[in-house]
Amino acid sequence: MSERYGTVYVINPNSSVSVTQGIDAAVEPLRSADGPAIACLTLAEGPAGVQSQRDVDGIVGPLLARAATLEDQAGAFVIACFSDPGLHSLREQSRRPVLGIAECGVLTALTLGQRFGVVAILPTSIPRHLRYFGAMGVSSRLAGDRAIGLGVTELADEERTLARMIEVGRVLRDTDGADVMVMGCAGMARFRDPLEQALGIPVVEPTQAAVAMAIGRVRLGWAGKIEDRASV
Amino acid sequence: MSERYGTVYVINPNSSVSVTQGIDAAVEPLRSADGPAIACLTLAEGPAGVQSQRDVDGIVGPLLARAATLEDQAGAFVIACFSDPGLHSLREQSRRPVLGIAECGVLTALTLGQRFGVVAILPTSIPRHLRYFGAMGVSSRLAGDRAIGLGVTELADEERTLARMIEVGRVLRDTDGADVMVMGCAGMARFRDPLEQALGIPVVEPTQAAVAMAIGRVRLGWAGKIEDRASV
Amino acid sequence: MSERYGTVYVINPNSSVSVTQGIDAAVEPLRSADGPAIACLTLAEGPAGVQSQRDVDGIVGPLLARAATLEDQAGAFVIACFSDPGLHSLREQSRRPVLGIAECGVLTALTLGQRFGVVAILPTSIPRHLRYFGAMGVSSRLAGDRAIGLGVTELADEERTLARMIEVGRVLRDTDGADVMVMGCAGMARFRDPLEQALGIPVVEPTQAAVAMAIGRVRLGWAGKIEDRASV
Amino acid sequence: MSERYGTVYVINPNSSVSVTQGIDAAVEPLRSADGPAIACLTLAEGPAGVQSQRDVDGIVGPLLARAATLEDQAGAFVIACFSDPGLHSLREQSRRPVLGIAECGVLTALTLGQRFGVVAILPTSIPRHLRYFGAMGVSSRLAGDRAIGLGVTELADEERTLARMIEVGRVLRDTDGADVMVMGCAGMARFRDPLEQALGIPVVEPTQAAVAMAIGRVRLGWAGKIEDRASV
Amino acid sequence: MSERYGTVYVINPNSSVSVTQGIDAAVEPLRSADGPAIACLTLAEGPAGVQSQRDVDGIVGPLLARAATLEDQAGAFVIACFSDPGLHSLREQSRRPVLGIAECGVLTALTLGQRFGVVAILPTSIPRHLRYFGAMGVSSRLAGDRAIGLGVTELADEERTLARMIEVGRVLRDTDGADVMVMGCAGMARFRDPLEQALGIPVVEPTQAAVAMAIGRVRLGWAGKIEDRASV
Amino acid sequence: MSERYGTVYVINPNSSVSVTQGIDAAVEPLRSADGPAIACLTLAEGPAGVQSQRDVDGIVGPLLARAATLEDQAGAFVIACFSDPGLHSLREQSRRPVLGIAECGVLTALTLGQRFGVVAILPTSIPRHLRYFGAMGVSSRLAGDRAIGLGVTELADEERTLARMIEVGRVLRDTDGADVMVMGCAGMARFRDPLEQALGIPVVEPTQAAVAMAIGRVRLGWAGKIEDRASV
Repeated sequence: MSERYGTVYVINPNSSVSVTQGIDAAVEPLRSADGPAIACLTLAEGPAGVQSQRDVDGIVGPLLARAATLEDQAGAFVIACFSDPGLHSLREQSRRPVLGIAECGVLTALTLGQRFGVVAILPTSIPRHLRYFGAMGVSSRLAGDRAIGLGVTELADEERTLARMIEVGRVLRDTDGADVMVMGCAGMARFRDPLEQALGIPVVEPTQAAVAMAIGRVRLGWAGKIEDRASV
Repeated sequence: MSERYGTVYVINPNSSVSVTQGIDAAVEPLRSADGPAIACLTLAEGPAGVQSQRDVDGIVGPLLARAATLEDQAGAFVIACFSDPGLHSLREQSRRPVLGIAECGVLTALTLGQRFGVVAILPTSIPRHLRYFGAMGVSSRLAGDRAIGLGVTELADEERTLARMIEVGRVLRDTDGADVMVMGCAGMARFRDPLEQALGIPVVEPTQAAVAMAIGRVRLGWAGKIEDRASV
Repeated sequence: MSERYGTVYVINPNSSVSVTQGIDAAVEPLRSADGPAIACLTLAEGPAGVQSQRDVDGIVGPLLARAATLEDQAGAFVIACFSDPGLHSLREQSRRPVLGIAECGVLTALTLGQRFGVVAILPTSIPRHLRYFGAMGVSSRLAGDRAIGLGVTELADEERTLARMIEVGRVLRDTDGADVMVMGCAGMARFRDPLEQALGIPVVEPTQAAVAMAIGRVRLGWAGKIEDRASV
Repeated sequence: MSERYGTVYVINPNSSVSVTQGIDAAVEPLRSADGPAIACLTLAEGPAGVQSQRDVDGIVGPLLARAATLEDQAGAFVIACFSDPGLHSLREQSRRPVLGIAECGVLTALTLGQRFGVVAILPTSIPRHLRYFGAMGVSSRLAGDRAIGLGVTELADEERTLARMIEVGRVLRDTDGADVMVMGCAGMARFRDPLEQALGIPVVEPTQAAVAMAIGRVRLGWAGKIEDRASV
Repeated sequence: MSERYGTVYVINPNSSVSVTQGIDAAVEPLRSADGPAIACLTLAEGPAGVQSQRDVDGIVGPLLARAATLEDQAGAFVIACFSDPGLHSLREQSRRPVLGIAECGVLTALTLGQRFGVVAILPTSIPRHLRYFGAMGVSSRLAGDRAIGLGVTELADEERTLARMIEVGRVLRDTDGADVMVMGCAGMARFRDPLEQALGIPVVEPTQAAVAMAIGRVRLGWAGKIEDRASV
Repeated sequence: MSERYGTVYVINPNSSVSVTQGIDAAVEPLRSADGPAIACLTLAEGPAGVQSQRDVDGIVGPLLARAATLEDQAGAFVIACFSDPGLHSLREQSRRPVLGIAECGVLTALTLGQRFGVVAILPTSIPRHLRYFGAMGVSSRLAGDRAIGLGVTELADEERTLARMIEVGRVLRDTDGADVMVMGCAGMARFRDPLEQALGIPVVEPTQAAVAMAIGRVRLGWAGKIEDRASV
């Protein structure tokens, strides 16, 4: 890893170390000897899983605080939760590029298919996703968003999780017409390959998508903020 | 005021008491001897003005905490900040109807004209508004969103504020084609009448719009949450 | 009721007195000793049910005529038919606030869920609704619009009607993904509570929604028309 | 003209014979010895100009009545007013194809440019147009809709009218980015050629557009209504 | 046929003569003794069926070359393939009106129902269609697009083809809510009548729709290109 | 460069070597000792600049042929022209990831601002861009698309080009409300830094954006095509 870039900090805003480990393994292929370091962190103050809107809103403060301590060494930040908590706040606070995995996962999916499906964790996640896709202005590309009905910590039961993801993915593909899938939780990272194989359509692991974009930005030296207008 | 309804709590999430006073005066005509009480509160923990995304995200925790203490006496909650901070979190937390002034202000405007203009405080508010209107799915009704370039506390200079609001409102009306105006800050409440008079098109004071809807909901006994599905 | 406000006239444009009675009962909780009177009227010239586009267009003349006779005593008008017949014509004619129940019912639903479903009476109503939601610019929030296949007068068979509404509501909720329901006919007013209970998601009775907003407008003294620009 | 087709009735719903004459001249090139006759009628009951929403709604009854008397001889109906009054009502009533000039004018424009501009008569027409384009689902193709500020009867002053149309057309082209123009009033028919010449971009005369489509439908024998499902 | 108009050239960009014959029969009712000749041509260089994006892109060169040889005699061009290959290129090249059958088929459907369904040939056609409807800005009117799973040459098996079209059409009508159908391949022309009869809702044969519009344009003398701005 | 990945081929479909050199310099920071090689190629068969729709359609054949010869050594393909010529055809043909610079440039811009502006070369490019953004479903995020009025080869006059780009960029920023800019031509690569400095808002060089995404995909081993479904 090259020190001239600063580190890409991937912050998992829940306190689940096994989720962070899954992310860390997922981004391993993006590490390069002459590229920026990639560090995956667990936010100890976070809940076991970021599942409700209160979880999302509640984690922004600690996340901003943690990022502030990393600002000087940072090359970029990736917020590794599919609700992109604090995305725009961190963009205000930091001079570095800041990317969210929901944002980058969906945008990447738009290059892989015409209508994307989202495999969510819980039914309550779906209205939040729909608001977000509306804010992004990409709702017309959404085929469907369906939940597997398992919380973040329950994803540890890998067999059950994968089976549910495949089941839901098939409905998104066959009933809703999705031709590309986005996994709607950072905790699903380890299931990308088997899910893609089972569904036969591309599957986006959103943290990989975001980190790939972050590395590009760091290498290109694109600023996270154009200073002159920062005070407007 | 009738005690059988519970109180409509209008929470100003910034710490500016004069803003709360302006709100309180604005909703006075909605008070009824046999209707719910309307109490306008200032969130002491809030910043002087909620202006940045960090202000928005940062105020959610204190706002939820304050609302929790009021839950039992509450008939409904109105979040009196045009960024609707914590709206969906408070809907999760509370069994009462919860309304945001941006949401209700814009929806009310849709009944008063075909294309709404928004008079924002600062240029940095605008992307946040655009994301929100996108999430609401009403962007095609937006004529324009323009800023007066004054922070919340600067609104205290009434003469300058009104002059700027009229100036911006004219551009929204004449260049952008707005035929109804929404005031994009709770702190602008006192300017509704002169702004409407100056522009000659309807002007929505969003806290009034939200409180009017909240009262209806309280009187009708519409629950904020249907209990059986709350845990889904 | 206070005389200083003028009366909120709720005009049922069909000739079915039992529908008007249902409406009158539904808005009863919105009546206040110090608020505007609420008078629910039946348009004798109307058809038994406003079901076709010809019914909608044909009723505008009598409705405008009736409203003209009420103009001086009126505080506001509510058009109590889910096709909002004559809404924009009455807005032209009257100096009072004019609200339509489809408009207000849908806008209110947008504050109660992310994707609204509509329980229509007849299949032929649906294209008309879709045109209207398109004109309102809210189509991206629509989950689905499905008919119970009963005409307005058939709604009098309450048991059958409710059974059909629940059946259709379940499809809207489970297949189309609606998380809030709008009842697509003023004649359905009496079924709101049992439908909500059966479906476990919020149900909007659109006349209640519109009258609540009308009362707010009357109390706030918001004009229906800004005189200076009325002649443009 | 061939009798086997029935006549294409072009109904001008205002009482202005000179407007009908302008329409009649405009559709002359579409007449064919072996095609359907084209008859342009003036609705005597109509106002001098259909300018307000009340004009639009008020003319539907007489228009339907007139069309009913023509049903047996009709091959198709064209409603020659840019508000398409009674379009969907007449579709219900008649077994013949029914086309509106706003609808056909805009759809035809979509084949001639990427963003269409509308030259309206009065500012008050614009919100009505915007609702209609929203109902049609084509708002994203609209560049702008601007008024010349002349009523239907004032169009008789040809020099002034053309000058205003060119002036407004230039703003639509240069400021709003329109690359095709739709004339937003049947009474503008005689100005198509000079307007196109002055602007250098295609100009759609909407009655011509609608009659061309109506003739196609008549010749092809496409029914206005598929009988078996008419009663649904 | 009158020579003063020039010929409407309908170019089938695949090499299947039987498809051209089906088109020729379909447009027969649009021929008029005093109107433009209509000539249906087969592009010998084309593939047996235009089915993939490569087929679409690959056929543009030969199509433009063929059209160039016809330019002087041409009154208008119609590209008779539902992917509208080379539509905008031919518009650049030719001074004549140029229409595509997908474009005209869909726009015509918008006058016959509120939500259109498309009967496609192959599943791989669907993303291409969706991109096109997005480019046209009419996606909100689309009910669904479903494939019969037969390639262009397989359409020759008429019995099987019609059976599949009816089957798919029923799903579009009953599950997706389509109230008008567009046949998504020029090779389906002969099935319009039986499909409409089987489904009971209007069915658009897109080449008929395009040729009808082309004839109108030729008769009216609307230029394909306004010369003064052609070089911009 | 590591041989295990295959090369990222960036194909400039015009024949202008200086454009390719500009691209090559722009992507230099993305090269890594242990990452895929990045080779920038000039398509000798291409026109000096891809400016018209005919240029776009005409270049697809040679581009596909060239890519076919590179398939075995390729890790991914990037089409370096802002019209993304042949994007979906090459996706059909190749088993490798294929990215277009318009697509990736716009999607990347969505992470840097709320409303993107496009600096186009010629006015005739704009309708083509608008169709493309419509096909992508991102039109609601577009602030404006404006041309500098210089052809691809004219970009060699750097001083004049940059001056025009800054001038147009200011209009996009100040009049249209863009808060992020996309350069709408691969030949503008060398102007990114001075344009960003002049405008004070982020500027996306689209080839950099696309190559960054391509590298990510190659490193992650995401296939360009899921084989099992390729034949559907």
